Amino acid sequence: MHSSNRSSKGYQELGFAKIDTDRERRRGCGEVIYGAGKTTAQLCDLFKAFRAQGQPVLATRCTQDQADALRTAQIDDIAHDPVARTISWHPKTAEQKNCGLVAICTGGTADIPVAEEAARTAEFFGARVERFYDVGVAGIHRLLANLDAIRQANAIVAVAGMEGALASVVGGLVDSPVIAVPTSVGYGASFQGIAPLLTMLNSCAEGVAVVNIDNGFGAGYMAAQINRKIARDIKT
Amino acid sequence: MHSSNRSSKGYQELGFAKIDTDRERRRGCGEVIYGAGKTTAQLCDLFKAFRAQGQPVLATRCTQDQADALRTAQIDDIAHDPVARTISWHPKTAEQKNCGLVAICTGGTADIPVAEEAARTAEFFGARVERFYDVGVAGIHRLLANLDAIRQANAIVAVAGMEGALASVVGGLVDSPVIAVPTSVGYGASFQGIAPLLTMLNSCAEGVAVVNIDNGFGAGYMAAQINRKIARDIKT
Amino acid sequence: MHSSNRSSKGYQELGFAKIDTDRERRRGCGEVIYGAGKTTAQLCDLFKAFRAQGQPVLATRCTQDQADALRTAQIDDIAHDPVARTISWHPKTAEQKNCGLVAICTGGTADIPVAEEAARTAEFFGARVERFYDVGVAGIHRLLANLDAIRQANAIVAVAGMEGALASVVGGLVDSPVIAVPTSVGYGASFQGIAPLLTMLNSCAEGVAVVNIDNGFGAGYMAAQINRKIARDIKT
Amino acid sequence: MHSSNRSSKGYQELGFAKIDTDRERRRGCGEVIYGAGKTTAQLCDLFKAFRAQGQPVLATRCTQDQADALRTAQIDDIAHDPVARTISWHPKTAEQKNCGLVAICTGGTADIPVAEEAARTAEFFGARVERFYDVGVAGIHRLLANLDAIRQANAIVAVAGMEGALASVVGGLVDSPVIAVPTSVGYGASFQGIAPLLTMLNSCAEGVAVVNIDNGFGAGYMAAQINRKIARDIKT
Amino acid sequence: MHSSNRSSKGYQELGFAKIDTDRERRRGCGEVIYGAGKTTAQLCDLFKAFRAQGQPVLATRCTQDQADALRTAQIDDIAHDPVARTISWHPKTAEQKNCGLVAICTGGTADIPVAEEAARTAEFFGARVERFYDVGVAGIHRLLANLDAIRQANAIVAVAGMEGALASVVGGLVDSPVIAVPTSVGYGASFQGIAPLLTMLNSCAEGVAVVNIDNGFGAGYMAAQINRKIARDIKT
Amino acid sequence: MHSSNRSSKGYQELGFAKIDTDRERRRGCGEVIYGAGKTTAQLCDLFKAFRAQGQPVLATRCTQDQADALRTAQIDDIAHDPVARTISWHPKTAEQKNCGLVAICTGGTADIPVAEEAARTAEFFGARVERFYDVGVAGIHRLLANLDAIRQANAIVAVAGMEGALASVVGGLVDSPVIAVPTSVGYGASFQGIAPLLTMLNSCAEGVAVVNIDNGFGAGYMAAQINRKIARDIKT
Amino acid sequence: MHSSNRSSKGYQELGFAKIDTDRERRRGCGEVIYGAGKTTAQLCDLFKAFRAQGQPVLATRCTQDQADALRTAQIDDIAHDPVARTISWHPKTAEQKNCGLVAICTGGTADIPVAEEAARTAEFFGARVERFYDVGVAGIHRLLANLDAIRQANAIVAVAGMEGALASVVGGLVDSPVIAVPTSVGYGASFQGIAPLLTMLNSCAEGVAVVNIDNGFGAGYMAAQINRKIARDIKT
Amino acid sequence: MHSSNRSSKGYQELGFAKIDTDRERRRGCGEVIYGAGKTTAQLCDLFKAFRAQGQPVLATRCTQDQADALRTAQIDDIAHDPVARTISWHPKTAEQKNCGLVAICTGGTADIPVAEEAARTAEFFGARVERFYDVGVAGIHRLLANLDAIRQANAIVAVAGMEGALASVVGGLVDSPVIAVPTSVGYGASFQGIAPLLTMLNSCAEGVAVVNIDNGFGAGYMAAQINRKIARDIKT
Repeated sequence: MHSSNRSSKGYQELGFAKIDTDRERRRGCGEVIYGAGKTTAQLCDLFKAFRAQGQPVLATRCTQDQADALRTAQIDDIAHDPVARTISWHPKTAEQKNCGLVAICTGGTADIPVAEEAARTAEFFGARVERFYDVGVAGIHRLLANLDAIRQANAIVAVAGMEGALASVVGGLVDSPVIAVPTSVGYGASFQGIAPLLTMLNSCAEGVAVVNIDNGFGAGYMAAQINRKIARDIKT
Repeated sequence: MHSSNRSSKGYQELGFAKIDTDRERRRGCGEVIYGAGKTTAQLCDLFKAFRAQGQPVLATRCTQDQADALRTAQIDDIAHDPVARTISWHPKTAEQKNCGLVAICTGGTADIPVAEEAARTAEFFGARVERFYDVGVAGIHRLLANLDAIRQANAIVAVAGMEGALASVVGGLVDSPVIAVPTSVGYGASFQGIAPLLTMLNSCAEGVAVVNIDNGFGAGYMAAQINRKIARDIKT
Repeated sequence: MHSSNRSSKGYQELGFAKIDTDRERRRGCGEVIYGAGKTTAQLCDLFKAFRAQGQPVLATRCTQDQADALRTAQIDDIAHDPVARTISWHPKTAEQKNCGLVAICTGGTADIPVAEEAARTAEFFGARVERFYDVGVAGIHRLLANLDAIRQANAIVAVAGMEGALASVVGGLVDSPVIAVPTSVGYGASFQGIAPLLTMLNSCAEGVAVVNIDNGFGAGYMAAQINRKIARDIKT
Repeated sequence: MHSSNRSSKGYQELGFAKIDTDRERRRGCGEVIYGAGKTTAQLCDLFKAFRAQGQPVLATRCTQDQADALRTAQIDDIAHDPVARTISWHPKTAEQKNCGLVAICTGGTADIPVAEEAARTAEFFGARVERFYDVGVAGIHRLLANLDAIRQANAIVAVAGMEGALASVVGGLVDSPVIAVPTSVGYGASFQGIAPLLTMLNSCAEGVAVVNIDNGFGAGYMAAQINRKIARDIKT
Repeated sequence: MHSSNRSSKGYQELGFAKIDTDRERRRGCGEVIYGAGKTTAQLCDLFKAFRAQGQPVLATRCTQDQADALRTAQIDDIAHDPVARTISWHPKTAEQKNCGLVAICTGGTADIPVAEEAARTAEFFGARVERFYDVGVAGIHRLLANLDAIRQANAIVAVAGMEGALASVVGGLVDSPVIAVPTSVGYGASFQGIAPLLTMLNSCAEGVAVVNIDNGFGAGYMAAQINRKIARDIKT
Repeated sequence: MHSSNRSSKGYQELGFAKIDTDRERRRGCGEVIYGAGKTTAQLCDLFKAFRAQGQPVLATRCTQDQADALRTAQIDDIAHDPVARTISWHPKTAEQKNCGLVAICTGGTADIPVAEEAARTAEFFGARVERFYDVGVAGIHRLLANLDAIRQANAIVAVAGMEGALASVVGGLVDSPVIAVPTSVGYGASFQGIAPLLTMLNSCAEGVAVVNIDNGFGAGYMAAQINRKIARDIKT
Repeated sequence: MHSSNRSSKGYQELGFAKIDTDRERRRGCGEVIYGAGKTTAQLCDLFKAFRAQGQPVLATRCTQDQADALRTAQIDDIAHDPVARTISWHPKTAEQKNCGLVAICTGGTADIPVAEEAARTAEFFGARVERFYDVGVAGIHRLLANLDAIRQANAIVAVAGMEGALASVVGGLVDSPVIAVPTSVGYGASFQGIAPLLTMLNSCAEGVAVVNIDNGFGAGYMAAQINRKIARDIKT
Repeated sequence: MHSSNRSSKGYQELGFAKIDTDRERRRGCGEVIYGAGKTTAQLCDLFKAFRAQGQPVLATRCTQDQADALRTAQIDDIAHDPVARTISWHPKTAEQKNCGLVAICTGGTADIPVAEEAARTAEFFGARVERFYDVGVAGIHRLLANLDAIRQANAIVAVAGMEGALASVVGGLVDSPVIAVPTSVGYGASFQGIAPLLTMLNSCAEGVAVVNIDNGFGAGYMAAQINRKIARDIKT
């Protein structure tokens, strides 16, 4: 329906960018905007192009300034989450009913912004999300007390900085796939997230795969992707 | 049923090891043996313990010597794949019917041993597997020609060394989750797999998560885990 | 002609610098100024020295402040490109007719400043340049749709951050040399450009060589150098 | 008593080595021999020198060949542990009664050689040692089931490769200091022990300090040092 | 006594955090707040929760702004040390009598903030602390002149940046355990503390274990932990 | 002409490999075999497939064993260079007349195997090659004495290990593009070629691009590619 | 003479620092102050202490603010060089006559601050200094033209960033020791000076030793140390 | 005198090598052969060429096989040191009288081979050498007891692996330049010598410069170079 303006080449040429109008057909989800480093002019152009096609859009790593600039440019029916740093837009007619379940756990409080990026992304792509924050291994009973709830999820996102042991411990206790997100939380030999990244890649528990440091978006996307495949089948 | 011998503590004490007899209940899959560095005596003890409980078992990173030692120790109803370096045992009564689909792609020929480890693992855990080898980006038409078949899979394993671009390219063309496995194939600045590891972690295509370098097992496990959740729901 | 002021030693002594007045004879191109870290006083002295000799000059990595300072110092017949961060000066009599073709591709929008540095440099050294921006592998049809145009070039510059797979994919599709430029675009495990640098060094496609991270200048120079050798021969 | 032969300079000159005869006075423990890279001739000379002084001696990282060479050289009242790779000698008159308690835990089976080096060292320096092997976080109930016993120790050595999460988890559950030993067990992104080293350095649980990769000796020494200070005070 | 408000689950749920109210029972010391990255609102909530339970609390890595915010929120009976960057609160009734001895040494003047974090932490957990600053190896007589005093300590914290040789040299001269803290003091090839970290991990003197770069807190905690076990036994 | 057997899909399926039969059309050069890690059975199958199509073929990184196996399998009209580790095959009818010029320089004697790989590759793809070995910067007059000859080349390959300064120095003296090849020659802080790799990436002379460590093949290919474009145009 | 106030312990206790008053006797040169990270109060205290003893003093890595603070504190007979970032003080009676010769070369203009730190330091410690700036290998004739002058020096300091080839090239042309200083000048794969550091450590020319990145002070000190030993002997 | 056969170009062409016959004139010392990776045929050719010119020659990193091959080839008047791995040849008429003094210290026994390479090199280039082995900081009194003797040297070579603290400690106690040689002795986080390399580069004591890991040759060369300049002046 909203593909009428799409180039037959499968993308829309904006000069500085080529919007991938074929992505939803090919991948099941539309293109997402990586906000970091975009000028406000570029961001406005992109939102206008998506809106002109009636296509829902999510932008990540957005600053308050970028959100303000969109509103100034009268692109004001957006939702901006300053913690998750996301901006999203849905056509008014859209009525999304999220289903399935994605669980998002963090080791500590400082991991919350990355976790929220994951949560907002998973919700944007149709998942119901439950949050379990500050359940790191320094006090493992906090995780164990929430285990039954976590086990309901079709996919689990484990977000942790410092030593990142959360992913292995969760992985060893559940039967759903765990998407691990190392964060740059920490100092010294955490090396901006290298320590938890390596921890997670070397998880002695199976069923753990890893995305880039601080990549809440990527984890939320993949969790939603898995959840959608499972939940869709359940529902039908 | 085969849990009767299990310790009430959830593990069986062997001195050098504590077999996690609770894992299948907790995680849906039984414990797997990491063969590297195990003495043949240890490996025999482990296989005997699993066999005594009638529990199917998979061992990875096994050498020909280890397989020979098992057979010498009259543990001879094992299946040993020298390319995948796996040894598995199933009780005779078990009749497994694999279902769903996992696709396993490699960039080149040298990635095949890792891919086979993934394939054997996914099959051990109940998935039907299809192989797409040598479809790397140096001749991208080889991938494009197989795309329709790859798209049938519930989960895709992308195995590549050198620059590891395969995962991003596949990820950008499908709607299923891609488990990316960097391999240590290459030389010089591939740094025994660091190059494709970083490539895959930074994938510009969403829906890609990464396991350890050469960790075919981990990818096969997670692909099977996702596949099982989807396929189970489809079947019922 | 404009070598009359040149020291017989082949350089002009400025105290803080020794201008390589022999370079054009030796290398076919005059010296270029690396603007980063130069004081405005030093930059002015250098531009004055070049101008006094009637020799065209290009400065890279220049800030707006440096451009303003040159103009304040009445060196005002310069061309400043704030995106490419270049400042150039040509004697009025010079009438350059660019020929041949250099193609400059980027993976995304954020790579454009580096690409523009390459483009400005290639143009400064006599190449005709065509730009193909945002053709990264997350939507590979955008690259394929432009392939015929890209194949016309004598040399191709591939600029990409994140996983940097663009260079391999382009390299596998063309018969011209590809100069790959990793960019520091990305976060986390892109490690300020190490990820695409390694990707490009390990390209499984032949005909790809790599310059420093964010070194648009170096790529533009080498592309122009190759283009000039080919185009000169074609024209004569 | 056995210091009569000691040089007044506090060391005995052997040409290739200067035995630190002052160490027991200064540090409470005699010098230890690092066997790796020593020729058998050097090792024999060192054992002879210690024996001539009636001073107990421990050598680490010793090969079977080195043990054989000592015996061939009629230094045959030694104790050689091929798993721990230690060789020790005590004067016959010595009657050691170990006291206090050091607990030594491993994540897996492959960590045992390093753990045994720690155990042998702690025992050499007077500690009673209890071993808890294969209690890694993939099946955390195996650790929890042994917690009461571990809590009796004055110092705990946590030995783990791969992701090394054991140290943090143990640290978060006990009130004794934990000496963490990363091991080179693993592959790929464990980078010969860098992954667990970083994990342990970034432990979110307090009371964890780290020694070099595979340095069972160092951990055993420090655990015994702490144990001795506490146990001595208890006993007196 | 002050555990009456504690959740039976062993933690208090604050939404963004789960306070580990079980830690003192389990580990002998209450939970500590890592101030970095906490919003002032979060910090206030945490202090209020601890105060409501009458439980002493220490926060590390706190800024002046955070201290001001606490006071503005009428949490004004706190102690803030701007050099150590710590904020602590004790119930009025508490009367702490520190005992035992922890020695804290630094290589230079610039290491003092990290050393003070260690000192404040060790004092918070009951240790008497003596400081030996600027005793680095460039003028080793400064260390030797203070050796008798240092040897009185039950545990020694060695804080050093640049090449970090202090820990090895101290370790070789004493019979107490040395907790080594590499600092990010230095430039160039100190790589923000990697150089002293590696130095300390490779100490040729035994009895040295290492905590994270700049982790004065961790060293102070562990030194106090060891000191408490020894001193308690002495006193009783 | 020899494309008659080619699959219409542009590749020939061998199971373990998919030969890119479309490459010559697309890229101007046929596919090359990377010998490392191929079993002799695989290598024989590949040579047979190429020979069956009458298509010339080059294999790199081949061992003496691989060459022997080919001859044993009666693929005996091959040319094997044990220094360059290349094996090549040409149909008898082919009569290649190399033209243009590629210059190949090395810093020292130990770089010769990599240089010969480059030379053999460039010759395979039609370039005339001249060798300038052991002209490193420790005795720079050896380079200067050969400069006139080097300047005749259309492309220059600079091969060097240790500090790899050769590429910059050559680059600063010529007007042709320089393809720099770092080698793993050296020890200690050369880190198997990282030192010269970084040197070459940071070349202060323009016109230098870099290929992977020890990648003589890649450099020879690109030099031949550039040479062919220039030489072809000259001839016409 | 000015040692009357010196503690018999060989140092003067300032609380935050212990001034090494024994250093001149022991090492031939007095202590130097590392300005970075010192508070202005600390710096003033140090200068006052040195001045009170009539001992000349050099401080490096000083900011303009630090210099201003000293003057405000009426320590105003100092010499401050804002490029070298040094502050020095000499008693009025001192009349230094520098002798011998140290040559200081840089690859480019941006290396000058580090070179000036070296120059100021060498001069402080009695050497005559000659500067050769911007003689990098991109235009090697600039170095060759100055070679006779450089060869007069007793020690040569080679300062270079980017690829740092200057040290090897100079080293290969002279018979005096070369102290190489890598600088953090550059970008991307220079990794803040790692590239030239590795280059210099791997110099194929003998007679080159290396100090820390940007450590002009260390190079100037060592060059002066060598120069003094040679020049003193010449003079006597 | 022995330069009659020298090419007027300043080097002798051997095909695989260009012997730098100009080096002694230019640098004061003749060319040295790096034995690693040379074939025995190449090594024989080089020794023959030097011998034919009557020029003394030193080869480093030579194996027993290489020494045997030289003798087999009737180049039998060589001196081979299997610990230092050096082979040297002097014309019979030469009568060398070494003078001055170079001190060579090691941290431990395992550093001796590198130290002997330094010693042999320094002796080859005319220095008198004294050895001080096993004086590492774990027992610092062993160093202090030898300090008076070490202080007599014109240059000091400090060889150490593991944490490499020896160089700083020596540097802080003497007034001669210290050439520091990190060795690959150690394990784990010594990273084949990176740990002592960084330690030495960050020495808080001045007057320390560093050569490559295990580069005894480079340190011996530079120490001899400094010694020669000082001793020559003393003698005259």
